[in-house]
Amino acid sequence: MLDLAKRVYDHSFRIDPIVRSLLDTDFYKLLMAQTILRRHPAIETTFGITNRTRRIRIADEVDAGLLREQLDHARTLRLSKSEITWLRGNVFRGQGRILGPEFVAWFETFRLPDYELAVHDGQYELTFHGPWIETTMWEVPALAILNELRARAVLRGLGKLDLQVLYARAMTRVWEKIERLQKLPDLSVADFGTRRRHGFLWQDWCVQAMAEGLGGAFLGTSNCLIAARQEVEPVGTNAHELPMVYAALAEDDGALAAAPYAVLADWQEDYGGNLLVILPDTYGTTGFLANAPDWVSDWTGIRIDSKDPIEGGEEVIRFWQARGHDPRDKLAIFSDGLDIDEIERIHARFHGRMRIGYGWGTLLTNDFRGLLPDGKLDPVSIVCKVTEAKGRPTVKLSDNPTKAQGPADEVARYRRVFGVGEQEALPVLV
Amino acid sequence: MLDLAKRVYDHSFRIDPIVRSLLDTDFYKLLMAQTILRRHPAIETTFGITNRTRRIRIADEVDAGLLREQLDHARTLRLSKSEITWLRGNVFRGQGRILGPEFVAWFETFRLPDYELAVHDGQYELTFHGPWIETTMWEVPALAILNELRARAVLRGLGKLDLQVLYARAMTRVWEKIERLQKLPDLSVADFGTRRRHGFLWQDWCVQAMAEGLGGAFLGTSNCLIAARQEVEPVGTNAHELPMVYAALAEDDGALAAAPYAVLADWQEDYGGNLLVILPDTYGTTGFLANAPDWVSDWTGIRIDSKDPIEGGEEVIRFWQARGHDPRDKLAIFSDGLDIDEIERIHARFHGRMRIGYGWGTLLTNDFRGLLPDGKLDPVSIVCKVTEAKGRPTVKLSDNPTKAQGPADEVARYRRVFGVGEQEALPVLV
Repeated sequence: MLDLAKRVYDHSFRIDPIVRSLLDTDFYKLLMAQTILRRHPAIETTFGITNRTRRIRIADEVDAGLLREQLDHARTLRLSKSEITWLRGNVFRGQGRILGPEFVAWFETFRLPDYELAVHDGQYELTFHGPWIETTMWEVPALAILNELRARAVLRGLGKLDLQVLYARAMTRVWEKIERLQKLPDLSVADFGTRRRHGFLWQDWCVQAMAEGLGGAFLGTSNCLIAARQEVEPVGTNAHELPMVYAALAEDDGALAAAPYAVLADWQEDYGGNLLVILPDTYGTTGFLANAPDWVSDWTGIRIDSKDPIEGGEEVIRFWQARGHDPRDKLAIFSDGLDIDEIERIHARFHGRMRIGYGWGTLLTNDFRGLLPDGKLDPVSIVCKVTEAKGRPTVKLSDNPTKAQGPADEVARYRRVFGVGEQEALPVLV
Repeated sequence: MLDLAKRVYDHSFRIDPIVRSLLDTDFYKLLMAQTILRRHPAIETTFGITNRTRRIRIADEVDAGLLREQLDHARTLRLSKSEITWLRGNVFRGQGRILGPEFVAWFETFRLPDYELAVHDGQYELTFHGPWIETTMWEVPALAILNELRARAVLRGLGKLDLQVLYARAMTRVWEKIERLQKLPDLSVADFGTRRRHGFLWQDWCVQAMAEGLGGAFLGTSNCLIAARQEVEPVGTNAHELPMVYAALAEDDGALAAAPYAVLADWQEDYGGNLLVILPDTYGTTGFLANAPDWVSDWTGIRIDSKDPIEGGEEVIRFWQARGHDPRDKLAIFSDGLDIDEIERIHARFHGRMRIGYGWGTLLTNDFRGLLPDGKLDPVSIVCKVTEAKGRPTVKLSDNPTKAQGPADEVARYRRVFGVGEQEALPVLV
């Protein structure tokens, strides 16, 4: 039983490094890494950090020495025996191991590769160069380190009672959200909050609270280490980096247009009939669905990650119906900046019309908004994205142009190839 | 730094007896005991517990064996050397010790006397017979034991996370009250919450929170042990038992009518120009003030404890004005079932018109209302009152007939002697 306030007050590097295991990452990174290892391990890539909340000058808040210390510590980590055993033990229902022996053997000897750190205009430029299979593994620990260091810089100035009250309020807030979730029929919700969490210990507490408060309605956590420790399911799908790298590798416009479906074809081969959840928005959901081969509509579900969730939900229902499926057999996973109000709104609209899952991230594991003056603990929108593959820039269009990425000429080409017209810009909170 | 949830989860008799020191009592008990020791130590008295919240059957909730164990443990306690030193060190500003050498010498060898325990209709009948100087010392520990045992019986059924959330919510609630108090100009507030506290550890936390949140506006705590540990001031005035025993000792109606003033005369002699706060409601405030000799109006303050506070405040202002005093030089202490709404209401009415102090009790140290189903942790109104002195029944009329006490014929006689007419019954929450 953990005394959060005390532990935070006593924080020291030895007791609480930010990343304490290579399993302290999201399950989907391992799923994607297995596919990458099998198919494209050696492609040279660059990943880089971007803070979309520009007004927050993170380099002014977080000491560079402490940042290096945490990044360097993460590079010393290797899997322990029990962690390897846990990895091997993860099976699909009666259908064999999720992570095969080749992947586990590779992961056993893996260490995080080197990084480059610079500062520009108050923001850290943290970049990772190297084979895709290595750089991809930095995404979650790098984000978790930056976010937690930012919180620790603020917490360092607080007294014991301030810390007690702070965590009391934050716990009360999480629990009140859980009590509202308890009222939603047929709920399925998972923790997706590793990368932007307030801290590891806090995420761990949130997972315990969700498990205790929601029982079977809590599907599990994306965080492998917490899943292993708390004996809950690790959960995950896949992310934009797969279509982004596949697209960058395309040699012509025809191959580019086909790239998002090539990703799914590979994934389907790697994971059999399991884990079949489409992330359709990398180059615009509407065009993706319109041009999708019919086998894509056979997949179990679709993740709605950058479009207004009501609009996005109605769109996938129309898609499934048009392709001759009953949406009630299908799964929509909502995962974009969710909070309790949004979850209730989505549930009121779609419950009973299709299966629904919620991947709840930042506002589960980092909702300290307003608990300190000047929003000092309010979350920021930091991402770690692949920016180059095989010497070519990667591009993301998204359904929300606020989340788009890539050089202007390449963005224009992608918009043309994928037939993306006007898009509505939505604010990005987290 | 204390992890309340963990400590409560691990509760065991050895680590956390409910009463852990003879100083774990209210300062006014020591002040009154010093006067009793000096003037009436040997008067035979009976004190007894009454639960005014009859619907709560405490004997069904609290195991009699556990109750005896805690009472017996309290009887083993003696003052430690450092506690004696602390007692000796309490001084009026430059005017010598509050507790004189005779009293400290008596207290050094004191142990709590025996008790009688029976059960009637779901309520404990817990009585203390013996010399007034001994029985009076049981009031606060007996109440604290019953209240905390009741809470522990409920907490025993909770899991770790439930406890964490419970205390997180309770801390959040206390802190939100403190934030509202911070807005009140010229605030003076003290903790009077020992007897009906949720638990010792919780009261201790509340005092820390008040000290940290309110600074100089927090006068201190009535609890001597917490005052000594936290280095805040012990605070206290006097209670109904003094006029009740003095009244019972009166040999005729004339002596009875004079008894409440005889108490004050003795008190004034014992404490010089200090601690001069009148508790006027034992036999009705209105008659007390009307018949008070002029020297009574020279006292610093009046405690308003059973009348509607707005009405009571206006009444003392009229009293001081009628006796030629400026109320702005005078102090009114409000101490009856206060909570934040009531404090704000009183402050809005009287700030600037007289000096104001708040003795905040149960709803500071035991506001767990609604935090568990069925109000399982809601506070109850248990009191421990002197019921007999020198073989005669004691009587209390109060300004609120719900709080009256004594045999019907004696109550009638007192009402006649003190000229008490119709009274308005107010609900008693705590």
